[in-house]
Amino acid sequence: MDPHEAEKHISGANPPVFFYVTYGLCLCLGLLCVLFVSLWSSLWLGGFAWNGSDLQFNWHPVLMVSGLVVLYGIAAVMYRVPFTWKQRKSIWKWAHAALMFLALLLSILGLCAVFDFHRAAGIPDMYSLHSWVGICTVVLFAFQWVLGLAGFLLPCSPRWFRASLKPAHIWLGSAILILSLTSCISGIGEKLFFSLDGDTGESYDALPVEAKFANFLGILIMAFGLIVFGILSKAQWQRPETDESAYPLLSEHGT
Amino acid sequence: MDPHEAEKHISGANPPVFFYVTYGLCLCLGLLCVLFVSLWSSLWLGGFAWNGSDLQFNWHPVLMVSGLVVLYGIAAVMYRVPFTWKQRKSIWKWAHAALMFLALLLSILGLCAVFDFHRAAGIPDMYSLHSWVGICTVVLFAFQWVLGLAGFLLPCSPRWFRASLKPAHIWLGSAILILSLTSCISGIGEKLFFSLDGDTGESYDALPVEAKFANFLGILIMAFGLIVFGILSKAQWQRPETDESAYPLLSEHGT
Repeated sequence: MDPHEAEKHISGANPPVFFYVTYGLCLCLGLLCVLFVSLWSSLWLGGFAWNGSDLQFNWHPVLMVSGLVVLYGIAAVMYRVPFTWKQRKSIWKWAHAALMFLALLLSILGLCAVFDFHRAAGIPDMYSLHSWVGICTVVLFAFQWVLGLAGFLLPCSPRWFRASLKPAHIWLGSAILILSLTSCISGIGEKLFFSLDGDTGESYDALPVEAKFANFLGILIMAFGLIVFGILSKAQWQRPETDESAYPLLSEHGT
Repeated sequence: MDPHEAEKHISGANPPVFFYVTYGLCLCLGLLCVLFVSLWSSLWLGGFAWNGSDLQFNWHPVLMVSGLVVLYGIAAVMYRVPFTWKQRKSIWKWAHAALMFLALLLSILGLCAVFDFHRAAGIPDMYSLHSWVGICTVVLFAFQWVLGLAGFLLPCSPRWFRASLKPAHIWLGSAILILSLTSCISGIGEKLFFSLDGDTGESYDALPVEAKFANFLGILIMAFGLIVFGILSKAQWQRPETDESAYPLLSEHGT
C-alpha cells in the first residue's frame, strides 16, 4: 500500500468526512481562542476602553489573537474546503484576500492599542523580544498581502510572475503564522508577569486562576495553529488545480 | 509556465545550487544561534556550573537551543541534501534517528538543568506558559522519536503501519519545531525580564546591550526555523522515493 493509499485508508472510505471533522475542530478551537482571550481581558484585566489607559491595552491581545491567529488561520485553509471546489476559484481568491485584509486591519488596530497605551503611560515601545517578533509578523503580513494582491488579483500581473510568486506566497504564509503563534505565546507570558507579579500582587508562580486560564488560552492558540498546519500540509486536501488558476483574476481569462 | 517550471526558473539552471545556498544559510544561522546563546550565558548570565545554582540554569537555554532547535532542524532537513540520494536511504534513516536522539538527549538535559536549579532555589516548577509549551514540546518529541523508531526502523513494523505513520510523522515533526521555536522565544523574553529587571537592576525597557543581544538571538532562532520550513516545504527538494523506502530498515527487504 503506498502512503497516499494508506492515508486514504486512515481517513475512511470518504476522505471529506475526515477533512470536515478536522476543519470543524479547527473552527471550534478558533472560536474558543477568541472567547478565552476576550474573557481574560474582560474578567481579569478590567475590560475595554480606547483612552490610552490600561483598558486600551486590553484590546491588544483580543485583536491580535482574533486577527493575526484565528482569522488568518481560517483564511489560510479556505481553499481546502471541498464545497468551494465546485465554484470558480476567482470567487474564493477574493474571499481569501478580503478575510486576510480584515485580519491585517485587526492586527494594525491591535498595534495602535498598545502604542497608544505606551505613549499615555510613558512606557518605551519596541524593547521586548515579543515586540520585535510581533512587529516583524505584522510587517511581513502587510508585505505578503500587497504582493498577493499584485500577483494574484491584478490584471496587469504577468503569468510568469504569478507562477513564480506562488511557492514564496505559500512559504511566507506559513512563516507568518509561525511568527504570530510565537508572538502570542511570548506576549501572554509577558502580560501575566506584568499583571500578576506587578499590578495585582498575586504571584504568577502560585498559579492563581488567571494564570491557569491565560496559560490554557496559550495552549488553545498553539492547538489551533497546529491544526491549521495539519490541514495545509495534507496534499490530498488541496483544491484540484484548474487552468483558471493560472490566470490573474481580473484578466480577460480569469473573469 | 506552470508553477514548478517557474520555480525551477527562479532557482536557475541548476536547482541544487539554490538548495545548497539555502542549506548553507541554514547551517550558518544554526551555528550563529548556538554561538549567541552560549555567549549570552557566558558573558551576561555568569557562565556554567552543575551545582543547582543560577549557573546551572545557564545550561538550559544553551541545551534547548542547540538540541531542540538547531540539531532538530538539521536532522529534519537531512533527507533533502542531494548528495545523500546516491546512497541507500537506510543509512540516512539511521543518521536521522541518531541525530534526533542526540537532540532529544540535549533537550532532556536542558530540562534537568532548570528543574535542579528550581529545586535548589525553592522556585515552583511548571507555572509559566513558557514551561507549559516547553514541556509539551519535549514530551511530543520523545513520543515522535519512539513512534518513528517503531514504525520506520524496527523489522516487525508492518508496511501498512509505516505507510500510515508517514504523514503523521511529517506533520508532528513540523509541529514540534513550531512548538520549540515558540518555547525559545517566550523563554528568552522571560529570562530577560528576570535577569535585567530583577537581578542586575538594569531595566529591560532601556534596551541595554544584553537585551539587544538576546533579542537578536531570538530573531536568529526564528530565521533558522523559518529557513528549515522553507527547505521542507519545497516539493522539488524532496528525496526521490524508491521502493526501498517502503520497507522497515531491518527487514529482509530493507537491509
